[in-house]
Amino acid sequence: MVLYIIGLGLHDEKDVTVRGLELIKSSDKVFLEAYTSVLSVGKERLEAFYGRDDIIVADRDYVECQAENIYLPAKDGNVSFLVVGDPVCATTHSDIMIRAREVGVKVEVVHNASAMGAVGCCGLQLYNFGQTVSIPYFDDNWRPTSFYPRIKYNRMGGMHTLCLLDIKVKEPDFEAMKRGKIVYLPPRFMLVNESAEQLIEAEDIRKGGAYIPNKTLCVGLARLGQPDQCIIAGTLEELKEADFGKPLHCLVICGEVHEMELEALRPYLIENSTFEIDAEGSLFDRGETD
Amino acid sequence: MVLYIIGLGLHDEKDVTVRGLELIKSSDKVFLEAYTSVLSVGKERLEAFYGRDDIIVADRDYVECQAENIYLPAKDGNVSFLVVGDPVCATTHSDIMIRAREVGVKVEVVHNASAMGAVGCCGLQLYNFGQTVSIPYFDDNWRPTSFYPRIKYNRMGGMHTLCLLDIKVKEPDFEAMKRGKIVYLPPRFMLVNESAEQLIEAEDIRKGGAYIPNKTLCVGLARLGQPDQCIIAGTLEELKEADFGKPLHCLVICGEVHEMELEALRPYLIENSTFEIDAEGSLFDRGETD
Repeated sequence: MVLYIIGLGLHDEKDVTVRGLELIKSSDKVFLEAYTSVLSVGKERLEAFYGRDDIIVADRDYVECQAENIYLPAKDGNVSFLVVGDPVCATTHSDIMIRAREVGVKVEVVHNASAMGAVGCCGLQLYNFGQTVSIPYFDDNWRPTSFYPRIKYNRMGGMHTLCLLDIKVKEPDFEAMKRGKIVYLPPRFMLVNESAEQLIEAEDIRKGGAYIPNKTLCVGLARLGQPDQCIIAGTLEELKEADFGKPLHCLVICGEVHEMELEALRPYLIENSTFEIDAEGSLFDRGETD
Repeated sequence: MVLYIIGLGLHDEKDVTVRGLELIKSSDKVFLEAYTSVLSVGKERLEAFYGRDDIIVADRDYVECQAENIYLPAKDGNVSFLVVGDPVCATTHSDIMIRAREVGVKVEVVHNASAMGAVGCCGLQLYNFGQTVSIPYFDDNWRPTSFYPRIKYNRMGGMHTLCLLDIKVKEPDFEAMKRGKIVYLPPRFMLVNESAEQLIEAEDIRKGGAYIPNKTLCVGLARLGQPDQCIIAGTLEELKEADFGKPLHCLVICGEVHEMELEALRPYLIENSTFEIDAEGSLFDRGETD
């Protein structure tokens, strides 16, 4: 009796692995996690492909407050918990694994592609990426820039930074709640354009020179791993105006860009971009960290 | 007519995605890249599963010196180029994509799990990883420690470092070549134990305090994503003596370890390990990068 946490990859029902598909078909219960990311197809398409009509959609409330409903049934039968991308890339799934193991449930992970790996398709080398940051939606009263020093530290070390962009699914509508109704706002997925705007504002607030809005090379990516994937490279000022189409979007702020990386990026560069590549020689090459 | 570069994942023939499998079955030619990593099964098992008997194994020489034999046929038919893990995680595959596109060949990537993502299964959060380093085999005359300042920079910023360990496949036997014979040495895959030994030596050479051999927490991982995967956490001095079994191995040198990460790591900790967690508060938290 096992809790299988199965990655679904990035696009549609056919991105599951053959192993994952076999496990889903033979599981007693199947849950679909539906709030840290989304596929381009819905539950019905997955059910048709898996040959079953009993997938339970687990939203944020469900996974955070009723996780035992997911892992306890794995004491008596096999349970598949389906996750977009790879299961070990989001904090939430680490939490459910720990709790399941604590009560003696065996957990197995079926890996798959994740945005954190697939981002390498733009030509930037994955091993040159530093820590990943999340860009939250700014609102009128809350404009947090805690991502800023992390981007700066990455860039000082010559590293690229993957920025994951905010997803708001099933957010309560506080105005309606004041009137005693439980209403959810429509889902929101941050666009590269919005993230570029916020990053420019963050540099303006912090003034630390982490990046230069009209010079630092950045790469916007939309619908990573999907057939209509869109990649555009340019400065933040330029990406602010670029059209990436539908979600999901993410953004990379480049550190040092090596020759082969630039070569691979070339097809995606905005014409007449004003970007400037950082002078070669990071902290390491200059030996300053020694 | 497309060159499909298809990730095979980390374990066996069933780790390919359903989409990848369909493309392999319908391709006119299929190449298997066989030197940046290995699956736990060989070409024959893949051929049986794909229902074809014509897979061409492409070793390092082939991919580096005769790459056009792989991508040029994609002008007249569909070609699948199979790669262990994810195609965008190794430099070599970036090179072949650039060259194929230069001569007008359409390239599509089918993503899959890679060691760089699956390493998150040990409980360390993927977004806390800094740049990835490679640890090459030391020999009598060549003991390069260029990975050292990178690990140090990551750790100063509180980040974990994934160390990819050397793989030597089809290395020429220079002694035999002096006698006029072309002979290859047996393949070698660096073990966690060997890497721990070399890292301890590197600290001894550089003396930069990047990590402390009997204190810094590290995680050794063997056969990532395979059913007999082995994870052991402890100091370098401890991991030097631990038994991880067969290749492939990799190693993580931890930066700051957060509470939930330590909780997730606990089942893998060596009993009575002498590790000490870095004092909380990295450069960022102290605001020193601002």
